[in-house]
Amino acid sequence: MCHQFGDQDVVRDSVEGFAQVQVIRCKAAVAWAVGKPLSVEEVEVAPPKAGEVRVKMVATGICHSDEFLREGGIANIDFPVIPGHEGAGLVESIGEGVTSVKTGDKVILLCVPQCGKCIFCLNPESNFCLKAHFHESQCVLPDKTTRFTCKGKQIHHFLWVSTFAEYTVVPEYAVAKIDAAAPLDKVCLLACGFSTGYGAAINTAKVKPGSTCAVFGLGGVGLSVVMGCKAAGASRIIAIDINKDKFAKAKELGATDCISPQDFTKPIHEVVIEMTGYGADYTFEAVGKQETLAAAMTSCNVSTGTCIMVGVQKAGSMLTIDPMLLLSGRAWKGSMLGGWKMRDSASKLVSSYLEKKFNLDVLITHTLPFPKVNEGLELLCAGKSIRTVLLF
Amino acid sequence: MCHQFGDQDVVRDSVEGFAQVQVIRCKAAVAWAVGKPLSVEEVEVAPPKAGEVRVKMVATGICHSDEFLREGGIANIDFPVIPGHEGAGLVESIGEGVTSVKTGDKVILLCVPQCGKCIFCLNPESNFCLKAHFHESQCVLPDKTTRFTCKGKQIHHFLWVSTFAEYTVVPEYAVAKIDAAAPLDKVCLLACGFSTGYGAAINTAKVKPGSTCAVFGLGGVGLSVVMGCKAAGASRIIAIDINKDKFAKAKELGATDCISPQDFTKPIHEVVIEMTGYGADYTFEAVGKQETLAAAMTSCNVSTGTCIMVGVQKAGSMLTIDPMLLLSGRAWKGSMLGGWKMRDSASKLVSSYLEKKFNLDVLITHTLPFPKVNEGLELLCAGKSIRTVLLF
Repeated sequence: MCHQFGDQDVVRDSVEGFAQVQVIRCKAAVAWAVGKPLSVEEVEVAPPKAGEVRVKMVATGICHSDEFLREGGIANIDFPVIPGHEGAGLVESIGEGVTSVKTGDKVILLCVPQCGKCIFCLNPESNFCLKAHFHESQCVLPDKTTRFTCKGKQIHHFLWVSTFAEYTVVPEYAVAKIDAAAPLDKVCLLACGFSTGYGAAINTAKVKPGSTCAVFGLGGVGLSVVMGCKAAGASRIIAIDINKDKFAKAKELGATDCISPQDFTKPIHEVVIEMTGYGADYTFEAVGKQETLAAAMTSCNVSTGTCIMVGVQKAGSMLTIDPMLLLSGRAWKGSMLGGWKMRDSASKLVSSYLEKKFNLDVLITHTLPFPKVNEGLELLCAGKSIRTVLLF
Repeated sequence: MCHQFGDQDVVRDSVEGFAQVQVIRCKAAVAWAVGKPLSVEEVEVAPPKAGEVRVKMVATGICHSDEFLREGGIANIDFPVIPGHEGAGLVESIGEGVTSVKTGDKVILLCVPQCGKCIFCLNPESNFCLKAHFHESQCVLPDKTTRFTCKGKQIHHFLWVSTFAEYTVVPEYAVAKIDAAAPLDKVCLLACGFSTGYGAAINTAKVKPGSTCAVFGLGGVGLSVVMGCKAAGASRIIAIDINKDKFAKAKELGATDCISPQDFTKPIHEVVIEMTGYGADYTFEAVGKQETLAAAMTSCNVSTGTCIMVGVQKAGSMLTIDPMLLLSGRAWKGSMLGGWKMRDSASKLVSSYLEKKFNLDVLITHTLPFPKVNEGLELLCAGKSIRTVLLF
């Protein structure tokens, strides 16, 4: 049985005298096919089944992975699909057996779930839950059906969360309850960009005090890496981007040096190696391109350096590297959602934000009403925004 | 002033009534050019200059890197050159200022030196001394000259140590004094193969008790990795080679499973992943080939796995990989000489050997008199030997 929240969007069906939550008709941004602009449509959102939660979205950030999805750059995606994966909202209704959240709770949606039971959830060093995308498709919910329809067609979920919709349905283990005092239009960034970058420095690299760091790419994720390095006590943080408009914010957040590869004739890894002696202690790739990943791998210290891969590379892309770069002791490591087990961590991250231990607000350069989602994507692609938050 | 040891090979020159150590004429195996068999020649070995040590070789292992050198597979090598880098001997004479060893001391020669002063020597996490090859050439001694001549030509050093010679000259920071009780015909393996493999498991991977390991390549290095994994308490050690003759020894040393890629139609990484669930906790590449390195990288656990690169890849080879293999949390790391700071560690390793904490003897399948060096290389290339030790 479902518990109801709100009523203006809900199609009621009186069954034996009880109002029962049913299908909701609402707006969502649909990617009908690779490469097409998103189309804001009226969709039907089915009620949550057992173990599922229906969420009324309040705010969602626009991340580059959404654009990547639209361009067909992410593996194992089925179109048509509703993008969006950096969202926060209110629980509208819950399916049978859901116990961790109730109607009205503020929640963050989790693009990497935490089932709590699998081998990786039980391993304190992993956050790559076996329910996550890449293990298997999250284009449909666990019962292999979707909760979205539009014009009579099934619409797929994206990483289960599909936050570019006024209402979305996710498994219980893909939501995390957070403090009722949390401003959802800010903490939605904890669902992906901020946590991914900050955690890459704090959890994955475990940046040591006094160390040198180089961050490739100063979007929302890269700037969050800068914040993580700063919080960890790095003595030097070299921020790298071809868009110098990002430099002021990077410096505000802790970067000690800001450089553009376009200002040098030599390869950027040679510049970083010269600046640091033998390479930075930690390098981070937050762009998602082969050439910046190769540069980040080469820019870390020849013997003790660690390169953290944060950016999602285009599906099917292959990287060609000199394997001997590794032999002298370098380490290359990946980081997914900053290594956070998000159901355990979301409320702690929200508390840290409320205690002003880090700054999400500075990442939000634009807010737009949800139907302007394509405008938000354009701002991102033009390098004019760090994060645009869509408000519902 | 030089201090003398032995006398049968030494050309004496009476200067003001004092016998003074001079040039030694002795035998050495010279690689005159890429691809040619080694040629055992009479060479002249100059006395050690200040800060240098002349060593009378007693035993040297034949490592695949020596064959690799001969084939032109190692970067930054100048021919003609005297190969060999897994040697032990006796200090014959020392140059001015040498204090850590004296004539008659048993020593291991260090193919990765430890100057004790550079940024990496001072960093407890690094063993990649700035005096090591790859930082700069070790084809000549630090004063940019060689101590070897043959038929009027300068002959280059290999990693400074050139152990395929009855006498060799190295900087003081490329020798380590060891226990006088050490059998040099066994502990010479500590100079490269054993330490490289064992340390890759113990120092670089830091294999945890109860973990699963997969070792690609069961030569001297790979079998030493197996020993390291076993010593670290791994619960499962999957040993992989196309030469099944190696399996008995691998099992004797601790391998729980031995598999040949040729027994499967599917790629070997899929086999390892199936055997372990989601990949081994640690994988080790001890072959030095692109395809085995790629397989090892892919065979480690998708979220928490670490692949350790141990084998030296052919100079100029490039590896093409799917970078998304990393994103889910995998780590790839290189290991050079097993991460040991060798001047600090050699005598401890010798003590551990004397205390029977590990077994070097089992790796030695053949001993040959030094002039049969080419026969030793042939045994290695034919997969008939693990380690051949040349005795002088």
